[in-house]
Amino acid sequence: MAVTSSPMRQTEEPKGVTAAKGFLAGVAAADVRGDGASRHDLALIVSERPATAAGVFTTNLVKAAPVVISQLHVKRGLARAIVANSGNANACTGARGLGDALRMAQATADAVDCPPGEVLVASTGVIGRVMPVERILLGIGRAAADLGRDGDQAARAIMTTDTYPKQAAVAVALGGVEHMVGGIAKGSGMIHPEMATMLAFVTTDARLEAGTAQTLLRESVRRSFNRISVDGDMSTNDCCFLLANGAADGPEIRSGTADFQQFREALDTVLWSLAEQIVGDGEGATRTFSVRVSGAADQVQAVRAARTVTSSPLVKTAIHGGDPNWGRILAAVGRSGVELALDRCRLAIEGEELFAQGQVVEGAVERVAPRLLQPRVAIDINLGVGEAEAIALGCDLSSDYVRINADYST
Amino acid sequence: MAVTSSPMRQTEEPKGVTAAKGFLAGVAAADVRGDGASRHDLALIVSERPATAAGVFTTNLVKAAPVVISQLHVKRGLARAIVANSGNANACTGARGLGDALRMAQATADAVDCPPGEVLVASTGVIGRVMPVERILLGIGRAAADLGRDGDQAARAIMTTDTYPKQAAVAVALGGVEHMVGGIAKGSGMIHPEMATMLAFVTTDARLEAGTAQTLLRESVRRSFNRISVDGDMSTNDCCFLLANGAADGPEIRSGTADFQQFREALDTVLWSLAEQIVGDGEGATRTFSVRVSGAADQVQAVRAARTVTSSPLVKTAIHGGDPNWGRILAAVGRSGVELALDRCRLAIEGEELFAQGQVVEGAVERVAPRLLQPRVAIDINLGVGEAEAIALGCDLSSDYVRINADYST
Repeated sequence: MAVTSSPMRQTEEPKGVTAAKGFLAGVAAADVRGDGASRHDLALIVSERPATAAGVFTTNLVKAAPVVISQLHVKRGLARAIVANSGNANACTGARGLGDALRMAQATADAVDCPPGEVLVASTGVIGRVMPVERILLGIGRAAADLGRDGDQAARAIMTTDTYPKQAAVAVALGGVEHMVGGIAKGSGMIHPEMATMLAFVTTDARLEAGTAQTLLRESVRRSFNRISVDGDMSTNDCCFLLANGAADGPEIRSGTADFQQFREALDTVLWSLAEQIVGDGEGATRTFSVRVSGAADQVQAVRAARTVTSSPLVKTAIHGGDPNWGRILAAVGRSGVELALDRCRLAIEGEELFAQGQVVEGAVERVAPRLLQPRVAIDINLGVGEAEAIALGCDLSSDYVRINADYST
Repeated sequence: MAVTSSPMRQTEEPKGVTAAKGFLAGVAAADVRGDGASRHDLALIVSERPATAAGVFTTNLVKAAPVVISQLHVKRGLARAIVANSGNANACTGARGLGDALRMAQATADAVDCPPGEVLVASTGVIGRVMPVERILLGIGRAAADLGRDGDQAARAIMTTDTYPKQAAVAVALGGVEHMVGGIAKGSGMIHPEMATMLAFVTTDARLEAGTAQTLLRESVRRSFNRISVDGDMSTNDCCFLLANGAADGPEIRSGTADFQQFREALDTVLWSLAEQIVGDGEGATRTFSVRVSGAADQVQAVRAARTVTSSPLVKTAIHGGDPNWGRILAAVGRSGVELALDRCRLAIEGEELFAQGQVVEGAVERVAPRLLQPRVAIDINLGVGEAEAIALGCDLSSDYVRINADYST
């Protein structure tokens, strides 16, 4: 299984959403933001044949119009295309917003010759603005004319405050046939997924039944996107789609088989890579950190403790300052609501144990301090009560986060 | 009932913790931080006669040593003195920390001639450092020699990153006798109380039985400190003490009487004022905002929705930027887990309705924008499902918050 992801590793192979056979992508500059700029802000992803479709969506009760429409469409278990725009979230836009999302589906359906119910729609950008739908419909036509095997531009077209495109692809042999799983994602702020996250589109040429695809995607999202946090805010527009078109002409991947395990690993690898890339591009982030919690009473508690630490503003600012302020980490664990035994609790940063047997380890703070200036910092916490463990990813909180978000809509 | 609080209103009357009869305060420069600076960092608050004592403490499972000791001592329902230091939290310091907190209680007991079990201990500052207990013990002796009717210095001595001291006092007639309720507080970061908060010491010359005092304090804390958030992080050292010494020679305040109601209002007023002062002094804060949630299914949900909005980094940065980005407010409500009916939901800022009937109100964003530059911003949200309501207070998130916290311990 070879991992190829951008910008972490460059390859000559096709990347991202067109890595798998039978998928095409096209983009257009639709001027969604209305500032006349010529940047690509609309992407189409099309399967040459009908594909099994699965989707995982935000659990925010305030759901954007495209989320509502795509949730309906994905229930068919079948899709031909994804249409996505940046620059406007089409959220909190009432009945008009739903109509606009449906018009995007219809225009895409017309362009690729499929029923509108086989189009998944996604939007990202400012909440509460009416969509410039006429410009978007024109853009869909241009993106359809641009369809090809290059997926890089699609990864760029869905960016908002992202500073780099996020792509990953993995090759995996199933039933003796090489298959590809690839994906793109966007996300930089409003990142604290609870069931799904941001925008992420994954394609594969494997053959999957709809129920299997849905289960695989939901589980993989739980282990990847649902373990990252940039700022603790959950989006109204989170969605992750998986399209599986069977174009590799391999066997159907059935639950419980060795191929299923292999495929699941490939899917996990792609989603984890995209999740890491999102955290690394967290708004204003200069550094990322992982929090591995072990010794927890159960998995739910391990995840909760790890995510509480990755979300703590005081931990995030300490990481930003390269400050081994481990007391803040323990304070965050302490308020997370999980069971812990303080006298058996252990805390290490970059492998250096700082806290054990109820107190600080002499000299450890000084030893670990220089290692906090690295681009990635690993934190390990043992709660001292059980066997469960989990890992979560976060990024530091910098003045740039404030700058970026203090005037995003205006 | 006259409210006198600093810095909001200056009066000639005694303020804060010595406003009530029979209470004395003293301070000392104990060099807790070990930097040789001469700032006051130790405060004693002493009742001339034994006082009924009540306390509310952090629910963080990682509790500082003074919290553990004071929780034990407050169970007696009787106290003579509070000893508090800034500069070191005495948290995560193991058995040695507990011993240090007990030595602080013993030294105070010796100085004011009472059993050590009648001393409440509180500490605030960096977590995980061993206390410079010899210097603190010397400081306690000097603070005892400094005891007098001026409480202002005590309010200053407990400050850490606070930029101003927080005091409030209220006069209330009970059974025809004038009583005073006064208090001081510190807190600026790690503020997201769940059962108690920061340090707050309240004194009164009213006569209260211990159970009544405990109930009154717990309820008043729930309506004041537990409604504020600076950064979503809960302290390991939160505690709020109430000492009631009966020195006004009024009747005992019994539950269910008119005097009880009056006293409760006075206590609420003092705690709410201190809570407002803490938010106004939130680390790096340039502006505060209130979030009133109405139309909620029940009170718990109203509080949860309001506090989720006051804790959202994206709302806080928008408030910092003076940006009427109401979509972020709705997104925060949507992820808070409370029941809401988006089509009946209403959102107003400074009385200007921005969102109603499922969509933005035309022109409202432009109308409200200039009012977001005020020092206080009022947000009103109706969830459209019930009758319950609650208010919470928050402050903006600025680059200064990051600067203050990126290098606090080092």
